[in-house]
Amino acid sequence: MKKKSIIFVLFVLFVSFSNYTKADDGYKLWLKYNLISNPQVLKGYTNSIKTLNINRESPTIKAAKHELQKGLTGLLGETIPESTNLNNDGTLIIGKYKDSPVLSKIDLKTKLEKAGTEGYVIVNAKLEGKDVIIITANEDIGVLYGVFHFLRLLQTNQDISKLDIVSFPKIKLRILDHWDNLNGTVERGYAGFSIWNWHTLPIFIKQRYHDYTRANASIGINGAVLNNVNADPLILTHRYLVKAAALADVFRPYGIKIYLSANFNSPVKIGGLKTGDPFNKEVQQWWEDKVKEIYSLIPNFGGFLVKANSEGEPGPQDYGRTQADGANLLANALKPYNGIVMWRAFVYTYNAEDRAKEAYAQFKPLDEKFADNVLLQIKNGPLDFQPREPFSPLFGGMFKTPLMVEFQITMEYLGQGTSTVYLAPLFKECLESDTYAKGKGSTVAKVVDSSLYNYSISGIAGVSNIGADRDWTGNMFGQSSWYAFGRLAWNHELTSGQIAEEWIRMAFSNDINVIKPIEKIMMVSRENVVNYMDPIGLNMIFGYDNHYGPGPWIDYSPHPDWNSTYYHRADSVGVGFDRTRTGSDYVDQYNPPLNEEFNSLTECPEKYLLWFHHVSWNYKMPSGRTLWDELCYYYYKGVEGVREMQKLWNSLHGKIDEQEFHDEQMYLKIQEKEAVWWRNSCILYFQTFSKLPIPTGYEKPDETLKYYESLSFPNAPGHVR
Amino acid sequence: MKKKSIIFVLFVLFVSFSNYTKADDGYKLWLKYNLISNPQVLKGYTNSIKTLNINRESPTIKAAKHELQKGLTGLLGETIPESTNLNNDGTLIIGKYKDSPVLSKIDLKTKLEKAGTEGYVIVNAKLEGKDVIIITANEDIGVLYGVFHFLRLLQTNQDISKLDIVSFPKIKLRILDHWDNLNGTVERGYAGFSIWNWHTLPIFIKQRYHDYTRANASIGINGAVLNNVNADPLILTHRYLVKAAALADVFRPYGIKIYLSANFNSPVKIGGLKTGDPFNKEVQQWWEDKVKEIYSLIPNFGGFLVKANSEGEPGPQDYGRTQADGANLLANALKPYNGIVMWRAFVYTYNAEDRAKEAYAQFKPLDEKFADNVLLQIKNGPLDFQPREPFSPLFGGMFKTPLMVEFQITMEYLGQGTSTVYLAPLFKECLESDTYAKGKGSTVAKVVDSSLYNYSISGIAGVSNIGADRDWTGNMFGQSSWYAFGRLAWNHELTSGQIAEEWIRMAFSNDINVIKPIEKIMMVSRENVVNYMDPIGLNMIFGYDNHYGPGPWIDYSPHPDWNSTYYHRADSVGVGFDRTRTGSDYVDQYNPPLNEEFNSLTECPEKYLLWFHHVSWNYKMPSGRTLWDELCYYYYKGVEGVREMQKLWNSLHGKIDEQEFHDEQMYLKIQEKEAVWWRNSCILYFQTFSKLPIPTGYEKPDETLKYYESLSFPNAPGHVR
Repeated sequence: MKKKSIIFVLFVLFVSFSNYTKADDGYKLWLKYNLISNPQVLKGYTNSIKTLNINRESPTIKAAKHELQKGLTGLLGETIPESTNLNNDGTLIIGKYKDSPVLSKIDLKTKLEKAGTEGYVIVNAKLEGKDVIIITANEDIGVLYGVFHFLRLLQTNQDISKLDIVSFPKIKLRILDHWDNLNGTVERGYAGFSIWNWHTLPIFIKQRYHDYTRANASIGINGAVLNNVNADPLILTHRYLVKAAALADVFRPYGIKIYLSANFNSPVKIGGLKTGDPFNKEVQQWWEDKVKEIYSLIPNFGGFLVKANSEGEPGPQDYGRTQADGANLLANALKPYNGIVMWRAFVYTYNAEDRAKEAYAQFKPLDEKFADNVLLQIKNGPLDFQPREPFSPLFGGMFKTPLMVEFQITMEYLGQGTSTVYLAPLFKECLESDTYAKGKGSTVAKVVDSSLYNYSISGIAGVSNIGADRDWTGNMFGQSSWYAFGRLAWNHELTSGQIAEEWIRMAFSNDINVIKPIEKIMMVSRENVVNYMDPIGLNMIFGYDNHYGPGPWIDYSPHPDWNSTYYHRADSVGVGFDRTRTGSDYVDQYNPPLNEEFNSLTECPEKYLLWFHHVSWNYKMPSGRTLWDELCYYYYKGVEGVREMQKLWNSLHGKIDEQEFHDEQMYLKIQEKEAVWWRNSCILYFQTFSKLPIPTGYEKPDETLKYYESLSFPNAPGHVR
Repeated sequence: MKKKSIIFVLFVLFVSFSNYTKADDGYKLWLKYNLISNPQVLKGYTNSIKTLNINRESPTIKAAKHELQKGLTGLLGETIPESTNLNNDGTLIIGKYKDSPVLSKIDLKTKLEKAGTEGYVIVNAKLEGKDVIIITANEDIGVLYGVFHFLRLLQTNQDISKLDIVSFPKIKLRILDHWDNLNGTVERGYAGFSIWNWHTLPIFIKQRYHDYTRANASIGINGAVLNNVNADPLILTHRYLVKAAALADVFRPYGIKIYLSANFNSPVKIGGLKTGDPFNKEVQQWWEDKVKEIYSLIPNFGGFLVKANSEGEPGPQDYGRTQADGANLLANALKPYNGIVMWRAFVYTYNAEDRAKEAYAQFKPLDEKFADNVLLQIKNGPLDFQPREPFSPLFGGMFKTPLMVEFQITMEYLGQGTSTVYLAPLFKECLESDTYAKGKGSTVAKVVDSSLYNYSISGIAGVSNIGADRDWTGNMFGQSSWYAFGRLAWNHELTSGQIAEEWIRMAFSNDINVIKPIEKIMMVSRENVVNYMDPIGLNMIFGYDNHYGPGPWIDYSPHPDWNSTYYHRADSVGVGFDRTRTGSDYVDQYNPPLNEEFNSLTECPEKYLLWFHHVSWNYKMPSGRTLWDELCYYYYKGVEGVREMQKLWNSLHGKIDEQEFHDEQMYLKIQEKEAVWWRNSCILYFQTFSKLPIPTGYEKPDETLKYYESLSFPNAPGHVR
């Protein structure tokens, strides 16, 4: 054995050893860059990547170079040198096309036109007779995105000998919304404190801010709303703007703009004015001055997110003005700087006949009233981030206003921090729903990416599940939903399965015996939760206020629509909210033929049945079972689904990192316990109406309904302010 | 070069490389176990430690073995095999003396008698003609402590060829008090959320719980109060006791008992009783039943910590009973299980003539009234964890009651999470103070370790500065104060300098060019803070409620003694609180000759001058300067001290881990800014009374007093509940 070989073997051994023995705490997310374990794949890569050619050093190109070096060193186990000559095969060329004399020798015009401002091109080519790989784009940011794509190819062990990639984002604004309070708590956050330490900003720049930025850029996120939509007015004071600016400086090279949630009454609360009336000249001037101040500190500031006249937040209606008047007040101030307003459509009045109808009722008449730099931000469903909801009818009802969809990545209603739920199937279900706004094929995705109406702006928002916990999301699988959100924001045509496999390969392993069981777990995980929480279209039956655990019995809120009984309407006859034409006529907020379909007891999809219909306990379901038996069937199936996930996970022992294995094992134990709790609570509760027995063969609840009703969780996470 | 040498060199290179390149995030605390970088020292150790002999496997011995293997593998760069034979030199023998046939051949009786139940013996010896190192003790826990001591010797590069160590703790209960709330926030916590995730306990056992336990055991901590003294009654419900029990299981092998803060009105709040009166039979029965339940879940439960009739917390006085009646109620319930009560002496009534006198006034008459399993827990000073206070007169005034001292490791009043302050000098200053309780030499240390009165129990408590931040304490130097607290609890005769050097060697480096500057920084750090916050005996002039930054102007609290003006009493004549016989006569709570010394304007130590005396602005200080000039002198000196720390720190660039270097550099920048803020605020404020100019040569304040008074920090950390 030659010395060189010894050195090589030792090198590989040590890197593997350090990969293996260091308990993985999840901090590196999907950017682990562990040494590639398949020797043939590794050899292929090291033959193809021998030198780096990087043509110019802007902050963004520097970031791309840094990432490439970090990634290649980890993945290939060696440092790839830089070189400007092309004497040998195996040069990886990265850079903006028009800056590069060497790239101009290759015609990439058509591809680059397609790529646009944020997209990129990755190709194999011959240059001066040598094999090269080219990552290029029209702008620096495209180069950075291309580098992340290329590294992903290596991380997932893909062939890099026939690359012919043109990729660009379908949606322009791809934004994470942080519901982080200035005191460090996170509303509906289940991963510890806020990652933003407002107190030590602007001087102290945490390493985590850099790594947050890298992670988001790697999946194409290009905006972050830093603070809670229930906005502390202090965020717009100079003291906090300076802090936000320090974060903006960190994010800028990575193409990420910052946005701030603005309190509509800021002119009163921090400006000393007597009113926040959008028609008041002083108020208009105050916003203009404030926006000017912001741009002087943050030249690439993105704009405002606003929750107005909703759940006690101030808004234009306090002054007798419309939501559009309010949005336009801010939009006008932002307009000279190309800033935008994301105006939330999440509004309701506590005592409406049917809360599901309210957003549509308020906003539909305002179509055409909004300034052109306003996007209306609409939650995926008409209520509130339930495990399953039909899409919001606003997506099919606004024809003149750019509409953003708002998903919740943090799992307020899906098991919070301890459950394993991969959310891509939920996101996709909404995006693929057909609104029929312009006939068949008018999917929510096409509304959101604006291909249906060709607006100059388009956007998608995800409420972040990120906190200061070491693994960012509390439960490692929370990372997969963050990842999937970014990937779908870039390209909503990717399937849930594709994204899951990508993520598993990067976060866990390229071993098929690891990929398969984890993919199975992920792909069933969301439907399991629906089954044991909210089957057949049930919804909004959660624990009071903290939304932790089951609370179908809740009927004591002064706000009628904060009660579970408002939503499930169980009685001796049956269960479900009659939203048909004989009920609240919510169905007619949908375009034909959906309104007809939802209105019909037999045509309404089973998954939405109790959302739209009050159905009798003995109604015969397509399965042949009565509604009551079907309800039991799903609740028990949900629990069994979790147990199946546990079995699949246990099969991974020894194949993945020990700490990750044990952590998830504990989380699944918690989830199994909670699934049983949900099932028993709901079955026993609804049984008081149906008076029917739990079908034979099912395990009996081990506690009484009274016991479940007695449980209270004043310290459940996510609702400390 | 032979293959073996190549392999060795490569090995060393890689381990060093991985030590060096991995940015240190502080998670490993002082237990880094990095490969020893001095080759000669390393060689000496590997020659002396070739095999391990471990004689029995209890959970505690297993923990010791695990630590030893982890430590030696890291420090020596190789795995030391286990072996039971003694064929060669270099066996490290660990185990309980009386369990080991091999150790019985060596007479260690005298040493082991001295070591007692928690102590240990570490010696070199000859066994069957071979050189061995022995770590032994009377109990397993002593062996574990001995292993940590031994590893510390290696970490700090000490000679291990002439070991003759007997070590035992001077104080029996060495306790960390966590002011952690059940919702995850930490009162006066500046390092993020609570490390306890009550929500996911008892199922989810974080790796951090294990590492917390190791770290504490390594410095001899043997108790932890898990929850805030402002105690949520829910902690004593079954649901939370099960969670606490899960932590107790983790801690047990490491000799750490758990304690809980109890709400005195628990019988009412969670027990459904109508009263919490200690003389009520039902109440007594409730506590007996509750304690029985606790011990059934946690067989080695330590006992209760209670804050009663203090700052709104309930207590026995609500029922017309004394503090002793309250303490004894709980003590009687705990007695059968050898549990103890730590009863806090932190009481005051908001409107007393002199708050400093109140604890003494309330508790002195109760001496002799407490059950023998009650310890009175007294803050180091009579007020509230100020940067400098004279010791509490209770330490010299109670002759029949075991007294614990309570230090605050979290820096509520010393710059909170962002300042660099090593607290050992503060702890030592108190412990070495002479109370004269039984004549000269009756130091606080001798009261606390009970050598003065020979009680069967003795205790010391530190309010933890630990949170979920990756480096545990937010600022890395916070670790040094945690470390110092444990080391002093074990042996209060260690000097601040000794402990600092130990910690630096373990946490940073054995390089003298690293040790010296850091030690200088640490040793001046506390005095600097005193200088720019509270010189010459000033105190309690902090920001309202959050205690962040300066607030000498605060005079708007409805509670007179929550106002800064109550404490500094500045007027046109002078400044300071007259606690002499012509004033509040607080001085006579001290034993002679202290009372006389403090009473005398000329004999009172300058550092306490304004604590005891109202002194005129023109009073000539020993330095020759007037009081006003002296005040300015100290405030400016404090700021210069921070700048000096910055210079020292900057000299370390390249000599320590990059991330640690930059993080601390940013913290020092924040501290410098805050020091200037303190100095300017206080000088400008006191100047409104003295009407005297800032002496020439000093930099002028760059803002007005009005500006400083206008600052407000509603989101400062450490006071979200």
